Amino acid sequence: MQDFDLYLPTHIVFGKGRVNELGKLVAGKGERVLITYGGGSVVKSGLLDAVKAQLSDFTVFEFGGIEPNPKIGTLKKAIELCRREKIDFIVAVGGGSVIDGTKCISAGTFYEGDAWDLMYDSSKIGRTLPFYAVLTLAATGSEYDNSGVISNPDTDEKLFLAAPNLFPAASIMDPTYTFTVPAWHTAAGAADIMSHTFEQYFVKEGNELTDGMCEAMLRTVIKYAPEAIRHPDDYEARAQLMMASSFGCCGILSIGRSGSAWPCHGIEHEISAYTDITHGAGLAIITPHWMRWSLTPETAPRFAQYGVRVWGLDPAGDPMETAKKAIDLTADFFRSIGLPAKLSDLQVTDEHFEAMADHVLKHWFPLEGAFRPLDKEGILAILRASL
Amino acid sequence: MQDFDLYLPTHIVFGKGRVNELGKLVAGKGERVLITYGGGSVVKSGLLDAVKAQLSDFTVFEFGGIEPNPKIGTLKKAIELCRREKIDFIVAVGGGSVIDGTKCISAGTFYEGDAWDLMYDSSKIGRTLPFYAVLTLAATGSEYDNSGVISNPDTDEKLFLAAPNLFPAASIMDPTYTFTVPAWHTAAGAADIMSHTFEQYFVKEGNELTDGMCEAMLRTVIKYAPEAIRHPDDYEARAQLMMASSFGCCGILSIGRSGSAWPCHGIEHEISAYTDITHGAGLAIITPHWMRWSLTPETAPRFAQYGVRVWGLDPAGDPMETAKKAIDLTADFFRSIGLPAKLSDLQVTDEHFEAMADHVLKHWFPLEGAFRPLDKEGILAILRASL
Repeated sequence: MQDFDLYLPTHIVFGKGRVNELGKLVAGKGERVLITYGGGSVVKSGLLDAVKAQLSDFTVFEFGGIEPNPKIGTLKKAIELCRREKIDFIVAVGGGSVIDGTKCISAGTFYEGDAWDLMYDSSKIGRTLPFYAVLTLAATGSEYDNSGVISNPDTDEKLFLAAPNLFPAASIMDPTYTFTVPAWHTAAGAADIMSHTFEQYFVKEGNELTDGMCEAMLRTVIKYAPEAIRHPDDYEARAQLMMASSFGCCGILSIGRSGSAWPCHGIEHEISAYTDITHGAGLAIITPHWMRWSLTPETAPRFAQYGVRVWGLDPAGDPMETAKKAIDLTADFFRSIGLPAKLSDLQVTDEHFEAMADHVLKHWFPLEGAFRPLDKEGILAILRASL
Repeated sequence: MQDFDLYLPTHIVFGKGRVNELGKLVAGKGERVLITYGGGSVVKSGLLDAVKAQLSDFTVFEFGGIEPNPKIGTLKKAIELCRREKIDFIVAVGGGSVIDGTKCISAGTFYEGDAWDLMYDSSKIGRTLPFYAVLTLAATGSEYDNSGVISNPDTDEKLFLAAPNLFPAASIMDPTYTFTVPAWHTAAGAADIMSHTFEQYFVKEGNELTDGMCEAMLRTVIKYAPEAIRHPDDYEARAQLMMASSFGCCGILSIGRSGSAWPCHGIEHEISAYTDITHGAGLAIITPHWMRWSLTPETAPRFAQYGVRVWGLDPAGDPMETAKKAIDLTADFFRSIGLPAKLSDLQVTDEHFEAMADHVLKHWFPLEGAFRPLDKEGILAILRASL
């Protein structure tokens, strides 16, 4: 068993209508609050009004327009606003992009240099602005972790920041807010949750406890994502996906396991840095090809365990054959929920593959620690197979 | 899916030698620290010295002698000490009894009335003294939860206190500290971890995610408890048990599930209130009889699922038969690790059964919400079957 730390200070408040507890949660936390959000969907749905109603004791500022794959230029404007208006805390209303962006705002407000520096070196993060989240999409797990992924279109970079004080103080999770999420983003969110789990499950050393947690995460998403797509207002399906999303990146799935290099995320972030495609869709394309590339006699038993415990394959089968079937089932599943099979389906070409591979090796976790150690040739092989 | 809150602010620091990070964890938290512990084992093992070496910048006080099933009279002396010496924080060095007792000290220090009041009404808990834990036994999960169970020999009561600010600030978990735990307490700790899991698994409404977590908890203990008993210094086995212990009572196994009444704990606390037997041993006796009493055509499918997923029984079997086999396997397992099968093996008689049943109904969670609703006759039936 590997040593580990586990630290999850966010208070999860889960259930229908629980936004009505926001006022109680933030009472006494200051006087001036910034609400951050993305496009207009939270305005249209009335959620923004519900949040504001909970903040009637505060001076409220708003900052909308945080985009998918949130951009540093946009976030710098919010940082300026927080400094100028002496904001005491932020309430992020949205999905992973809004919450990730809010983490950058939170850390950037007290950082004197260029906020983009924090993406190169999280150790520069000092004091942060407290923030709360009201979640509207089951996907990234940003509502229950301390990291965020930010894009810089000027440099074609998509990098992350992380710090122990970048957890939301509390996250309100009401599955009904995800009823209006379209099929595409529901499917992409499901792929994101599954990918977070795969990245931590497929490592050199596992253990029974977290193997079992990961397998339960995967069974949950495989069961409920199709139901949520078929019946967008099925509370049970939406709730199951939302609950699962929170455990994807918080660290609990990794306790005691050998380190993960998160290879599929490293590669996908490069693709969406260059092309702005939906992160979960990129993951759904990359993942089966990463699996096929990583399948060796050494790694086959774990892929086979995945096949048996998640897909119900015969435990008596040959591990290599079971592993191959499990990988095919994974690819079939992503297609069955409407996700693309090839990068070219999303108009991605091989133009930047070399630069993407170089970037992964430069900015991502060391990939020699991956399930199957990964070098530039390996990254290029996976990218080309995904095209 | 049921609404839930999840709040786990304790920082888990897990691994060999990580007590050497205690000084860094408590830096700046005050000037005067109390170390609490139980019998002399932490003195003999050198752990107390290792803890003190980390606290060289502080004025250190010691309070030893917190007993198994910690007694309110003992704890009141520590509360007096904390008030008199103006203690800033506590470091609890021990197992569940020491950490539970420390929670009572933490809450009692700032409570002006009789500290035993807090056991009747946790809402009276206001400010608490911060505390840290250095764990020496894998069992109760007190290192990662906000509740403690305290005994009052004067009234034959064993009750609990709980509050959101009664989590340890950090818990240092070094599996090597459990190498010297004797077989009896290793087995009783294993039964305690399993019982915590059963209490939350056997409820009316589950879900795939936490079903899977519970099943993984149980498989972990069933695999590693016998190994830890056979080879007391097997790091892997000790580490697996210690990791599992922390998730038993923190609430994560219950998210989204219908409420548990924790019936076996309610009954066992009464037995050990009257007789001071080892909690885990009492649970190992009670649990299979509670299972048999709770097995009905309505509850059989969940017991059968337990049999299939934890004990590897045939999924095609008749649910009632599979359930019965799973319960027998549970009882056999407890005996195989050296735990008793009958209360009379621990010199417990039926003398107080009526009073115990009355106490459970008066002080415990409402048992009409149990997996099979439980009334006085049910409690007595389980107690008599366990004799």
